[in-house]
Amino acid sequence: MKILVVNPNTTVSMTEKIGAAARSVAAPGTEIVAVTSPMGPASIEGFYDEAFAVPGLIRALGEAGRADAAIIACFDDTGLDAARSFAPFPVIGICQAALVTASQIAKRITVVTTLSRSVTPLEELVERYGFGRHVKVTACEAPVLALEDPGSDAREKLEAEIARALHDGAEAIVLGCAGMADLAAALSQKFGAPVVDGVAAAVKQAEGLVSLGLRTSKRGAYAAPLAKPYAGDLADFTPR
Amino acid sequence: MKILVVNPNTTVSMTEKIGAAARSVAAPGTEIVAVTSPMGPASIEGFYDEAFAVPGLIRALGEAGRADAAIIACFDDTGLDAARSFAPFPVIGICQAALVTASQIAKRITVVTTLSRSVTPLEELVERYGFGRHVKVTACEAPVLALEDPGSDAREKLEAEIARALHDGAEAIVLGCAGMADLAAALSQKFGAPVVDGVAAAVKQAEGLVSLGLRTSKRGAYAAPLAKPYAGDLADFTPR
Amino acid sequence: MKILVVNPNTTVSMTEKIGAAARSVAAPGTEIVAVTSPMGPASIEGFYDEAFAVPGLIRALGEAGRADAAIIACFDDTGLDAARSFAPFPVIGICQAALVTASQIAKRITVVTTLSRSVTPLEELVERYGFGRHVKVTACEAPVLALEDPGSDAREKLEAEIARALHDGAEAIVLGCAGMADLAAALSQKFGAPVVDGVAAAVKQAEGLVSLGLRTSKRGAYAAPLAKPYAGDLADFTPR
Amino acid sequence: MKILVVNPNTTVSMTEKIGAAARSVAAPGTEIVAVTSPMGPASIEGFYDEAFAVPGLIRALGEAGRADAAIIACFDDTGLDAARSFAPFPVIGICQAALVTASQIAKRITVVTTLSRSVTPLEELVERYGFGRHVKVTACEAPVLALEDPGSDAREKLEAEIARALHDGAEAIVLGCAGMADLAAALSQKFGAPVVDGVAAAVKQAEGLVSLGLRTSKRGAYAAPLAKPYAGDLADFTPR
Amino acid sequence: MKILVVNPNTTVSMTEKIGAAARSVAAPGTEIVAVTSPMGPASIEGFYDEAFAVPGLIRALGEAGRADAAIIACFDDTGLDAARSFAPFPVIGICQAALVTASQIAKRITVVTTLSRSVTPLEELVERYGFGRHVKVTACEAPVLALEDPGSDAREKLEAEIARALHDGAEAIVLGCAGMADLAAALSQKFGAPVVDGVAAAVKQAEGLVSLGLRTSKRGAYAAPLAKPYAGDLADFTPR
Amino acid sequence: MKILVVNPNTTVSMTEKIGAAARSVAAPGTEIVAVTSPMGPASIEGFYDEAFAVPGLIRALGEAGRADAAIIACFDDTGLDAARSFAPFPVIGICQAALVTASQIAKRITVVTTLSRSVTPLEELVERYGFGRHVKVTACEAPVLALEDPGSDAREKLEAEIARALHDGAEAIVLGCAGMADLAAALSQKFGAPVVDGVAAAVKQAEGLVSLGLRTSKRGAYAAPLAKPYAGDLADFTPR
Repeated sequence: MKILVVNPNTTVSMTEKIGAAARSVAAPGTEIVAVTSPMGPASIEGFYDEAFAVPGLIRALGEAGRADAAIIACFDDTGLDAARSFAPFPVIGICQAALVTASQIAKRITVVTTLSRSVTPLEELVERYGFGRHVKVTACEAPVLALEDPGSDAREKLEAEIARALHDGAEAIVLGCAGMADLAAALSQKFGAPVVDGVAAAVKQAEGLVSLGLRTSKRGAYAAPLAKPYAGDLADFTPR
Repeated sequence: MKILVVNPNTTVSMTEKIGAAARSVAAPGTEIVAVTSPMGPASIEGFYDEAFAVPGLIRALGEAGRADAAIIACFDDTGLDAARSFAPFPVIGICQAALVTASQIAKRITVVTTLSRSVTPLEELVERYGFGRHVKVTACEAPVLALEDPGSDAREKLEAEIARALHDGAEAIVLGCAGMADLAAALSQKFGAPVVDGVAAAVKQAEGLVSLGLRTSKRGAYAAPLAKPYAGDLADFTPR
Repeated sequence: MKILVVNPNTTVSMTEKIGAAARSVAAPGTEIVAVTSPMGPASIEGFYDEAFAVPGLIRALGEAGRADAAIIACFDDTGLDAARSFAPFPVIGICQAALVTASQIAKRITVVTTLSRSVTPLEELVERYGFGRHVKVTACEAPVLALEDPGSDAREKLEAEIARALHDGAEAIVLGCAGMADLAAALSQKFGAPVVDGVAAAVKQAEGLVSLGLRTSKRGAYAAPLAKPYAGDLADFTPR
Repeated sequence: MKILVVNPNTTVSMTEKIGAAARSVAAPGTEIVAVTSPMGPASIEGFYDEAFAVPGLIRALGEAGRADAAIIACFDDTGLDAARSFAPFPVIGICQAALVTASQIAKRITVVTTLSRSVTPLEELVERYGFGRHVKVTACEAPVLALEDPGSDAREKLEAEIARALHDGAEAIVLGCAGMADLAAALSQKFGAPVVDGVAAAVKQAEGLVSLGLRTSKRGAYAAPLAKPYAGDLADFTPR
Repeated sequence: MKILVVNPNTTVSMTEKIGAAARSVAAPGTEIVAVTSPMGPASIEGFYDEAFAVPGLIRALGEAGRADAAIIACFDDTGLDAARSFAPFPVIGICQAALVTASQIAKRITVVTTLSRSVTPLEELVERYGFGRHVKVTACEAPVLALEDPGSDAREKLEAEIARALHDGAEAIVLGCAGMADLAAALSQKFGAPVVDGVAAAVKQAEGLVSLGLRTSKRGAYAAPLAKPYAGDLADFTPR
Repeated sequence: MKILVVNPNTTVSMTEKIGAAARSVAAPGTEIVAVTSPMGPASIEGFYDEAFAVPGLIRALGEAGRADAAIIACFDDTGLDAARSFAPFPVIGICQAALVTASQIAKRITVVTTLSRSVTPLEELVERYGFGRHVKVTACEAPVLALEDPGSDAREKLEAEIARALHDGAEAIVLGCAGMADLAAALSQKFGAPVVDGVAAAVKQAEGLVSLGLRTSKRGAYAAPLAKPYAGDLADFTPR
């Protein structure tokens, strides 16, 4: 089984970290192919970056050749609905994957993300997935790319926020950024509570769907794009 | 006051119709500048089209020169959150504008849109804006571009669906596609019930915000994009 | 266009302030007629006052002669549903107008009202309008009429509460009392965040509805009162 | 124990029916005093009538002398919040009483009311009390006063609507008008399902609160009205 | 009228306290029969205990002989749905009874329970009954059986938590454990706010249903168990 | 990895079918151990059966020896909360597993269960898991054990109900009974839409949690049962 892991931002070091996290939990027969978006923002922090990450994501999905499933490795599930309409295989978002995983081991969950500006977008996502009553979202105020910089204090800020969430009644923690994918095991051990990384969770969700033979429904909201002209710089993306 | 009306699809005849609808309700001192997206899909029907309409929309906003407000003239409020983060002036979505307008003259509202595939996306939008308990969404099964074709039966289908909605208890109708902007007055008269067109509603919401001196809050979710590199075909959109 | 602004309490100084606030944002062709309720409470603080403000409000609406729209200038939208059933023209509530306006420029909104006793009634109103997930309500603990008294510390209390709300993540502020209508511009400038006054917002919503030719739907909940006898002191209000 | 049953409309025959219904279920030591509102509408059908029923209701409460509890015998719980703020004893609304009673014997409940125009107001009430997920509201299209007229077909219409509701999955029926108070037992027997009348339910809720020594909380939303001038025809209602 | 009060845990001293609380509010003609579960946990603290309290509860109901109604005297309404399906008479849960009672005298309610582990289960119960927007749940961190021990500091902890809840805006308090049934009157007086005990509230709800002749609906969710074999230790409970 | 699949009813033929369904989707290294509850009802249809299935379920979990995860193979997720508090390994409910799986491939989902009496309990479960806005529940009116009988018309009834759900807009179907576990593939092919079986979905969710090293949080709601005496027939279940 081949699972495509698309980093929808253009930062290669993050793709490598994400790919490694995915491989470390993949089942024996699973091949993880981690790809970096060929165009768009270096990190996704807020609505504007998110919108401009979608074309690169779709291109990455389209150029990847045959695959059995794909994972979008950004915690705001960038372009997930468009990708599900587009791809012939199931597509998993790491936010949704983390939430459905955490909801099976805890009743009260806190997502710890990077910056405050992402809190409201993530709250809307959580609400849309149906977890509004169970899940809180907080920010540790470390930017995404600081997580790539060993000299930053991003890790300290993240741990302080996790400690606060557990003290306030969280039963499990969800890491709210793909760039935290390498930290879940250590944090889980340190705090004695489940810490869920969305990338790892998404790999298991993807493997599950593939081995069950389940694909995105093409009835209703996720029906394939209708054929129609696309103009200008985006003509390459014309649906056929 | 100058209000930019952006048609986020590339169909010029639709822009003209929308521009005319906007001008017909604009206040004396309001200049309506209707522009067509320079790139992307010819119509927006579902999640995929919607994603690829955003870059053209942002380009149109960026190239339009000084304006006091902008309107996104597609009923799924394409790219509204990104546009609000990007633009120095307020940005109005025609779906949200139509709903807030209708909610001040009726308790139970039905949105009649084009195709079934748009129903679930619009229901999610309605829910996000807070109108889930008051608003139903139905489709008349006429494609967007059929509304541009005088020979099609789109108008009959639309009227049949409005009649059904009123029979089922709707107190007001919202037209769920910018391409229906020219029909509101005639339908309202025919059915003896308020029929709200989002383009017209958005013009009044935009005029209102401008004359009140209110702009998009730059705290939290709509904070301006952070400066960072954008790669590839989308480098033109790099936030600075 | 003639817009009636009804102060549903009997305090004339408040009517003058509200009328001035309405005029300061009205469009060139808009005539603002501000009237004071001829009967009932001097201020509206809680459910009891609210109930007894409705007859005076309806009388003011009925005696005002021809008008194109009316605004109820009390933040608990006193008697709004009854007024919409009664009046031949659209009726705007300043709470609903402020919320729909603020929701187009911010995702997280805090209403700052006068006394704690109004918090729960306003929360119910916010919930009924659909904004329960987006809007918080807090009180600055200054009574309505203290806002009319230049020697009181009402302004200081209000500013302290606004500062607290912004610190807690509010992206925009709504002033939760018609008696604060003259303060919005100064507060907005002081805090560098949108501060929405419901009276001003309502003027623009009313102008919008009138120029769109939209009136309250007479189907369903807002159908005109059925003819029937009214007895005793309220016989004047008998619907015909 | 003395329980005041206030008919907030001015139709004496309805008061008599309501009083009889209340007495028929009252406990041995309970005295039922049924009073008719001294002013306002002859029946309450929609928001306008509802607003004008409140002063008469409050006068009836104020003039009734010592009582241990009061019941507002109109299914839209006319003026309930104002009455709770005003009265020194607990006040029960028949809609709320019927819903809390029915929710203890069934999971899915349908309220059958008189006219369509009341459906949305009742749905809002049901939602406010917290029963939105459990309760549906339908109308049998018989006006309130037709229930007083033995020659009308009101009873047939009501029975047809109950049959429809049970067929659609209702487990219990709530009669959505005080004027149906005399029918509950016969309908319950006829349909072999619980049929709850709000007047009877309210008597038991009122007796319960009184014997538990519980009164309306005077903290927060139901705090007593603040002393302030009331002008004009309503000066009699000035809170002190 | 005979009302069975079942303590679904096996602690006899608690049954006695509960029985006394029930008798102290029962109407003259009401006979209270308080019984202790013959099997299962000594106290109910969390989901596991709750599950093992149900067989004893059902046995107690089945062996009690003729009764007019039953009350389940544990605040998590242990086995309430099963009991309603099983019993020929109405069954009241003390949590639901306390909430419906409190909701008729206050808008904002706080339930104070024993241990943190019970907060989430009770929040789910509150949500299921429809009171999610009105009711908060907090714990005083005193175990159930400590309430039986005069030497413990349980009472102090409970009072501290009540004081905190009132300070935070609660208008009424609900005691979140049957073991607090003897404290309501004293706490109510001490804090000058309504304090509702579920056992007492349930007695009045049960008396009300019985005198109205209302029984659990046997349509839909509460239909009697279908006849089928039950194996092993639970064969005694086979439905017939 | 060893996954325990517990059939919480006592019907061995159903356990065999469920075990086969689980094995057919298990990963190479996964051992499926399917066990039948040693006590309680032969099938679970409604609240009463559900309650009496829990002790047998817990006994089966306790006696199964070392395992890495467990699945409760009844669609009402019988005793799931108790099992999660009890077991040292993660426990998956097939209803929750099916819903989280389906929600990743479709926006609108219909659960087709056996009898009407199960609809409301399942709706409550769906609501509790957060899927209330996305998921409908319907019944095909075939009893659980009819699914075991090749001569019954259960399969026809199920197919008719699936066809109806798809016609009404469902994008994916969830089979609402463990006894339908062998039908998913054939139905999916027949209807050209995703048909999700909870047993298969649960196997993949369980494998995922185990390979991620995630266990039930022991903070808060799922904390292990406190040590305390259990009396009578249930003394064997005393927590230690």
